[in-house]
Amino acid sequence: MNVLLVYAHPEPKSLNGSLKNFSVKHLEDAGHVVQVSDLYAMKWKASLDADDSTDRHANARFDPSLDSRRAFEHGLQSKDIALEQDKLRWADAVILQFPLWWFSMPAILKGWVERVYAYGFAYGIGEHSDARWGDRYGEGTLAGKRAMLIVTTGGWESHYSARGINGPIDDVLFPIHHGVLYYPGFDVLPPFVVYRTGRTDDARFAKIRDALGQRLDDLWKTAPIPFRPQNSGAYNIPELTLRPDVAPDLTGFAAHTA
Amino acid sequence: MNVLLVYAHPEPKSLNGSLKNFSVKHLEDAGHVVQVSDLYAMKWKASLDADDSTDRHANARFDPSLDSRRAFEHGLQSKDIALEQDKLRWADAVILQFPLWWFSMPAILKGWVERVYAYGFAYGIGEHSDARWGDRYGEGTLAGKRAMLIVTTGGWESHYSARGINGPIDDVLFPIHHGVLYYPGFDVLPPFVVYRTGRTDDARFAKIRDALGQRLDDLWKTAPIPFRPQNSGAYNIPELTLRPDVAPDLTGFAAHTA
Repeated sequence: MNVLLVYAHPEPKSLNGSLKNFSVKHLEDAGHVVQVSDLYAMKWKASLDADDSTDRHANARFDPSLDSRRAFEHGLQSKDIALEQDKLRWADAVILQFPLWWFSMPAILKGWVERVYAYGFAYGIGEHSDARWGDRYGEGTLAGKRAMLIVTTGGWESHYSARGINGPIDDVLFPIHHGVLYYPGFDVLPPFVVYRTGRTDDARFAKIRDALGQRLDDLWKTAPIPFRPQNSGAYNIPELTLRPDVAPDLTGFAAHTA
Repeated sequence: MNVLLVYAHPEPKSLNGSLKNFSVKHLEDAGHVVQVSDLYAMKWKASLDADDSTDRHANARFDPSLDSRRAFEHGLQSKDIALEQDKLRWADAVILQFPLWWFSMPAILKGWVERVYAYGFAYGIGEHSDARWGDRYGEGTLAGKRAMLIVTTGGWESHYSARGINGPIDDVLFPIHHGVLYYPGFDVLPPFVVYRTGRTDDARFAKIRDALGQRLDDLWKTAPIPFRPQNSGAYNIPELTLRPDVAPDLTGFAAHTA
């Protein structure tokens, strides 16, 4: 299978760098083909702006959505954006690997999402009517592919537990799992999270590496997070609220998982 | 009072640009002093890396936290970082204004947080012991200052309601409110959110502007979100889980608001 690893850490000689190298070798040894988008090494342009189109008009008003659509539809996207879209089309599975900085992904990876997820590619697709609200949340360009996060954090596992001060890790990651990955169609696997990274000696690293290897071996058999598809009857359209009979007692992020 | 407006939109002739100009004039007309960090206009460097220190050694291993601490403590930070820290020290209130892109802030603003929030400035402060876990979540460098988000989104308000498909707006913004603003000490006000920005005619813009003007008038009297301080007895330390007698029936983000 084809695996794209999108990797965002500035230092190769880091825990993240070691885990990235391990993942690539482990997947290749199992017969998979791996491409890595090493965003720092690529000096990825993080900020979405008018220069993302190759026919930028100096005085034209820039509209982030509509200019993205025009550039995508007419082959006017910056080459770096088009190349990443090609990698996503090629991939059977996509892994985003990053340190959790301020409870989200690093800016350089957020900018990869913003620029690569063009209008017409990752959003703004399909019929918008009283019965459908576009091909998204379970449908879309990337449907049929799998995605998984590999995340490291200095905080303890208890700090990210159900009553931990940082919020439960599943809720902290929901905007990425549901809003960035499920939105354009990915089947989203449970994340691989490494806590308390300040205390990683060789013995602990070996354990982390083995657990990650198991998750990579299971990439095609792990059950995805059962998010609810938008257009399959669970939601009122166009309000996009859960119908009263679906998880009637739940509100918040948890209500969107079956 | 002194107000810092950190603004992240690439197009001045946008709804965001208009609201930013309105806010500056409205606050100045009320006698406040306003500074704007217009991140796109400043060509803000979004990606945190080794070049954020002025004495970068080419072959040294880069540690995002420890190098940040060293640069902060020894006056070796990039000038752009130090200038933003000065603005934060100067401000009585800080407003972050941005369009919600993929359920979080734009990469350029995330990179402002990552680079300006140095070790020793926004985290890694105070005693770490069995009784205290640093000066954070209600304490820290920015304690006593107020912060508020101004956020625009194309989605409808119902899409961000308690059972809306995107998740409740308060939960979507929790990692920013609690994790980025409350963490270094800010009192965090409820956000000013503009929904369905694709349909903003002059009459609607006038209403939005008036509502925003009211929020700016109330900047010093609006009650902050009552997040729970970390070191005031609500949490077990060092596990940092809520004590059993605090909100005993709650889990998730909601449990951290009194």
